[in-house]
Amino acid sequence: MTSSKPNPSRPDPSSVPGAVVNRLSLYLRELQHLIGDGKETISSSQLGQRLGFTDAQVRKDLAHFGHFGHPGIGYRCEELVPAIRHILGTDRQWQVALVGVGNLGRALLGYRGFQKQGFRIVAAFEVEPEDVGETIDGVPVHHIDQLEHVLSEQDIELGLVAVPAEKAQEVTDKLVASGVSGILNFAPVTLAVPEGVSKVGVDLARELEQVTFAVANRGNQGTN
Amino acid sequence: MTSSKPNPSRPDPSSVPGAVVNRLSLYLRELQHLIGDGKETISSSQLGQRLGFTDAQVRKDLAHFGHFGHPGIGYRCEELVPAIRHILGTDRQWQVALVGVGNLGRALLGYRGFQKQGFRIVAAFEVEPEDVGETIDGVPVHHIDQLEHVLSEQDIELGLVAVPAEKAQEVTDKLVASGVSGILNFAPVTLAVPEGVSKVGVDLARELEQVTFAVANRGNQGTN
Repeated sequence: MTSSKPNPSRPDPSSVPGAVVNRLSLYLRELQHLIGDGKETISSSQLGQRLGFTDAQVRKDLAHFGHFGHPGIGYRCEELVPAIRHILGTDRQWQVALVGVGNLGRALLGYRGFQKQGFRIVAAFEVEPEDVGETIDGVPVHHIDQLEHVLSEQDIELGLVAVPAEKAQEVTDKLVASGVSGILNFAPVTLAVPEGVSKVGVDLARELEQVTFAVANRGNQGTN
Repeated sequence: MTSSKPNPSRPDPSSVPGAVVNRLSLYLRELQHLIGDGKETISSSQLGQRLGFTDAQVRKDLAHFGHFGHPGIGYRCEELVPAIRHILGTDRQWQVALVGVGNLGRALLGYRGFQKQGFRIVAAFEVEPEDVGETIDGVPVHHIDQLEHVLSEQDIELGLVAVPAEKAQEVTDKLVASGVSGILNFAPVTLAVPEGVSKVGVDLARELEQVTFAVANRGNQGTN
């Protein structure tokens, strides 16, 4: 193990690189699969190998948050899963509001990956009269003017922005005014949020650029 | 500047962390905005500041690929944009196939962020009879049985997998058999691909976990 001291599991989030947080999610998914397969323990090198990281990377990432391994045993899956969920803040349910029920919004309402990780979309919002009043995948679609009212009633803390780029800032301002603490933005535009509100932007072209980077540079793989 | 030697701009991709590639995309977007605003040059600290990174981080990331800065000037936007596009492999158009035209697939067909970065979805595939033969956002929807034929005719190198989890591996195998070199997978499942094929998985819950991590740990921000 490394020489890092055990930390309380609530670090300064600005001191932890986003890439580490991203990998925590990957570790969590893999551990959840392992538990599903009946596996009780795993070493850092086995966990790393399954995901394409070194064992040192795995240990270093987790060392940001405390000591989780047991000498001669490795990690106990049933112990590490709740620990990572606690770090990620997903050791509880989060109520989520969705704004925009176009194709993307409807895809998000049907996305099973959210529910599995503790995210529950409980309300959707639209401006289009033909969508308002509908129930999609069990979620009621309200008029956007009802946003503040519905959010205050339902203890909703997160917002998904799935509206066209030119509407995204306006919608974000409304979500912030209604008290959400975090926003996941799917519109291809950079949003301004006040301090104290967290936001992450999903840029699908960026994901595709990761693919083309690997394809375009493949000829050089292993040559230096 | 750092002491790293200028590298040829085709490095071993496995030596470059994914997080660096991700940040290259962010630099690229920001530089494209700057050019749009008429700005000709920018320093590493200005570029970093706009994105929440240090100037050292910006310089270190770019140093993986060569020397791009000019003493006393910084980066020339019109020079760095094509350089990053070359590194990312997006200094040319990529033809893309989409499999699955449910809500998510339709959202991807309408996503303007792809075209802007040089990705062109030229063919879509489905099994549902009511979708086959349709044209969505100018893209024809073929039956999945036509995959190999259409891909060989149209020089399509990338595939987007937007089908339910239980169909994703089968679809991926077909894309690989038809010769695609890279896959972006939206199904919440880990895909197996042969060596020589690149894949990136989009896990939307992971993005949302980045938000909750920041929200859940906010009380500690700046306290240590």
